[in-house]
Amino acid sequence: MSQAHLFDTAIALAPHGEGEWRGSTSAAYANMIGPYGGITAAQVLNAVLGHPDRLGDPLALTVNYAAAVADGPFVLRPRAARTNRSTQHWIVELLQGGQVVVTATVVTAVRRDAWGGHEAAMPEVPRPLDVARTAQHGVEWLQRYEMRFLQGKVPDVWDGRTSDQSLTRLWVRDEPLRPLDFASLTAMADIFFPRVWLRRAKLVPMGTVSMTVYFHADAAQLAAYGSGFLLVQARGQGFAGGFFDHGGQLWNEAGDLLATTHQVVYYRE
Amino acid sequence: MSQAHLFDTAIALAPHGEGEWRGSTSAAYANMIGPYGGITAAQVLNAVLGHPDRLGDPLALTVNYAAAVADGPFVLRPRAARTNRSTQHWIVELLQGGQVVVTATVVTAVRRDAWGGHEAAMPEVPRPLDVARTAQHGVEWLQRYEMRFLQGKVPDVWDGRTSDQSLTRLWVRDEPLRPLDFASLTAMADIFFPRVWLRRAKLVPMGTVSMTVYFHADAAQLAAYGSGFLLVQARGQGFAGGFFDHGGQLWNEAGDLLATTHQVVYYRE
Repeated sequence: MSQAHLFDTAIALAPHGEGEWRGSTSAAYANMIGPYGGITAAQVLNAVLGHPDRLGDPLALTVNYAAAVADGPFVLRPRAARTNRSTQHWIVELLQGGQVVVTATVVTAVRRDAWGGHEAAMPEVPRPLDVARTAQHGVEWLQRYEMRFLQGKVPDVWDGRTSDQSLTRLWVRDEPLRPLDFASLTAMADIFFPRVWLRRAKLVPMGTVSMTVYFHADAAQLAAYGSGFLLVQARGQGFAGGFFDHGGQLWNEAGDLLATTHQVVYYRE
Repeated sequence: MSQAHLFDTAIALAPHGEGEWRGSTSAAYANMIGPYGGITAAQVLNAVLGHPDRLGDPLALTVNYAAAVADGPFVLRPRAARTNRSTQHWIVELLQGGQVVVTATVVTAVRRDAWGGHEAAMPEVPRPLDVARTAQHGVEWLQRYEMRFLQGKVPDVWDGRTSDQSLTRLWVRDEPLRPLDFASLTAMADIFFPRVWLRRAKLVPMGTVSMTVYFHADAAQLAAYGSGFLLVQARGQGFAGGFFDHGGQLWNEAGDLLATTHQVVYYRE
């Protein structure tokens, strides 16, 4: 008898009343306080993926972290606000104790045969198994990923030295291995520790406020990839008034761009 | 007696029932079919900016264009899903004939004194008045902006030549002049003609599906800037299955990053 992957258990949802789902945070993806934001984003997406009315595959996802997610159960309330011939627009709310904790919008779409050619090329980097595995310490969710950093690791020394750039590049895959899909790709889009830690070499308090993911692959492409590594990178843009943003890209080992992502993050410093 | 600026007239909203606004598309910002997407985004933001319950300034805006906006009146339905001490999360819907045409989320926040230092530096470019004004032909909304292109203009010849890059840079300001604010900054974040036209030198049908703007300035900073030029740039990332995305930045003349933006766009080719 095979056991479910921890990721699948974490994002599992049960029907709960009219058009709602019930889920729960997962100790396997615990962060310092509450859950890893990437697993919350995957749960939100899963509320649409599992919906009987869904049309097409995910194209765009925006998740707004409106309040700290508390350990324990939650309710997901997805609503198809508009359904067209080939696109569909969802509004999703995640509630705990009757209060909205996450708001989100999801666009799903039927992809067509069309001219293509990704402009964001994968940088030239060593193959994943030629890069040392990075030891992971600390919070539980880090144990769910195998990471091999190429550039922009968490500072070894928190000496408060200011840097003018925050590019991070790493190879990453699920630990244990799991075939890639939209939910796991979404979770990995949030894998970047906060850029402000790199810029400041200082462990300042922070929290993602809003994250967007654009998907550039369809379900068949993701399924065909299996459980290979993703090369993921992120770079900060604006840092002011207690908020910064970053933009990032996720490629498979063949150099196909699978998704792009950006997020805006609160920090106290 | 001074006349209202066309932009202010275009984004003006009137109270309409319980917590709703009524607005209308503006002939001054007409696109090929329906309105310019940037003016729709500004109208959506204005539904929150004008709300008596609003807390703080815009931090993040995601606008999903769920269907074509028809010329004529619309209703805007903003709802504060969550209000915290210093951030607030809004869900906004724009309706025509009782149907959802746009979905959006807006995060507003009170900015604090904090360490800052923008990482996305303005490229070295000539000053705006040292660059020739670009002649604008075609749709009406283009007449509302003074544009001075530095790089990546709309192709002069539509010869279907494929290019591997789509960087566009231009100086832009309202025409006639108008002091910068969150609404006009939002409208300018959508100013980029579709990157696929540059990549393909072909006038393929397209439409923005979702746009996100992160704001890196507060209201006082924007007001202090007045009606100067913005340097704006955008670059494509993924192009596949009939959808592409781009990332972009908007700076003032002093080189301060005011906003970053992303969007995913449908194209038929």
